[in-house]
Amino acid sequence: MKIFLDCLPCLLRQALEASRRVTKNQDIQALIIEEAIKIISDYKKYNCSPEIAKDIHNIIKEITGDPDPYEAVKRYDIKKAEEVYPLLKELLAKENEKIYWALKIAATGNIIDSAIYGKTDFNKILEMEVKKEFSICDIEIFKKKLKSSKNILFIADNAGETIFDKILIEYLDNFETTYAVRSEPIINDATIKDAYDSGLNSFSNIISSGCAAPGTVPAQCNNEFLYLLEKADIVIAKGQGNFEALSDYWRPVFFLLKAKCPMIADRLNTDLDSYVFKYSGMLLEES
Amino acid sequence: MKIFLDCLPCLLRQALEASRRVTKNQDIQALIIEEAIKIISDYKKYNCSPEIAKDIHNIIKEITGDPDPYEAVKRYDIKKAEEVYPLLKELLAKENEKIYWALKIAATGNIIDSAIYGKTDFNKILEMEVKKEFSICDIEIFKKKLKSSKNILFIADNAGETIFDKILIEYLDNFETTYAVRSEPIINDATIKDAYDSGLNSFSNIISSGCAAPGTVPAQCNNEFLYLLEKADIVIAKGQGNFEALSDYWRPVFFLLKAKCPMIADRLNTDLDSYVFKYSGMLLEES
Repeated sequence: MKIFLDCLPCLLRQALEASRRVTKNQDIQALIIEEAIKIISDYKKYNCSPEIAKDIHNIIKEITGDPDPYEAVKRYDIKKAEEVYPLLKELLAKENEKIYWALKIAATGNIIDSAIYGKTDFNKILEMEVKKEFSICDIEIFKKKLKSSKNILFIADNAGETIFDKILIEYLDNFETTYAVRSEPIINDATIKDAYDSGLNSFSNIISSGCAAPGTVPAQCNNEFLYLLEKADIVIAKGQGNFEALSDYWRPVFFLLKAKCPMIADRLNTDLDSYVFKYSGMLLEES
Repeated sequence: MKIFLDCLPCLLRQALEASRRVTKNQDIQALIIEEAIKIISDYKKYNCSPEIAKDIHNIIKEITGDPDPYEAVKRYDIKKAEEVYPLLKELLAKENEKIYWALKIAATGNIIDSAIYGKTDFNKILEMEVKKEFSICDIEIFKKKLKSSKNILFIADNAGETIFDKILIEYLDNFETTYAVRSEPIINDATIKDAYDSGLNSFSNIISSGCAAPGTVPAQCNNEFLYLLEKADIVIAKGQGNFEALSDYWRPVFFLLKAKCPMIADRLNTDLDSYVFKYSGMLLEES
């Protein structure tokens, strides 16, 4: 997905939020923002927003000397997600249309990175969010493709959300699944360590995409991942960053996300904050 | 008020909104944003946000060749405010504590610049907004000062809001009032033309502050205005821009506004979207 002018103030706002998350020193926060302004002023050299976000967050790592500023956030989110894992299993067990709800649970995992609630509140909000149905749901295409498929490439989003993905991957146990994560810590995105910590290795082959942007930019990926991206029978990509990086990629992908950004909601022709399971075969035809 | 890092993405977002208001040409919009990024990268040379906003909006004027890109918006807002003027008079007539509600009506005028409603909706929202009481109200200090005062300097904010101010100025008819406006068109702020078009000349002496920023920056004002700013028995400044530009000024000012920005709400120690009538005597002591 191309970079919209709207992305620039938003990326700057995100840089400020991130700077405050990693340091209380206002001079360092100012330095981060000043560097972020330099980066967004060069926005034309980038192909999509996650590429810009990567450079901004690399600056944060450089300036703070912390190679993984979101480490504590990721541990906390994985722990929180582990706590609700039995609840998610229960929710799925109650449903008849299991494949729909396994997908929906995985999509709902996308809320964990913005969730700052007490435990009781989080469980309530989670149940409510899980029950919201998809506004766009290409499940019939998915079911059809499953019939002729042996393997599925799954492209992860955030740590914590990984536990929600596990529900879907366990459900797809008859298929050979590969779970691809970022090559390095970037924001709260899942890395190999986070995937193992979430127990995904029991159900899936875990690999690094080779890409350290918060969205899977093909030009930055390693050959192993690119081979799978090309050859896998089905590709499921989680979250907005992967949508931004892969929505114009030549091979069709199933995008599974919550549309939390107005530009992405607009591109998907859906409402803000709605859940989407979209096959990009049609998106590619439309664009 | 100093510039917060939060102001920078917000100023950029405002630049984008303004660029879209003045042109549909996306290349020109991009050019405006690129220039706005250059301006915010230099934020340390400014003393307050309205100074930055002035430079950004001057760039918009230069690039589009339009010296008053908000002309149509201002005409529309003045017309809309004129339509509700009888309703505002009626609302005031019903109240016993007239001085409180005349101030409150003037403060409520601050919503007109973000109001995109149909007529019926606008009247309903307006009545609801007028009825919301001030969260901070230094009216007792104001009443006391009125007793020993002969003249009042009123510093205007937006066109349209001018009509709401007229209600207050009519009520303060026993005082010699001066109504100070921007020296040039800047966003939708009131100029001399807008003040005359709003009929304020029947009740007040209209002058230009000499400042063309969307907030009255003393260093940019003319001598006539600065003399009044220093000598007036009472100064009432409307809106957020004037608060940002004058909250640290040495002489106490009554600020009359709706706190629409989280930073300003925080500085005033009040909730977002609340109405404030604050005497800066105390603010200056606190800072």
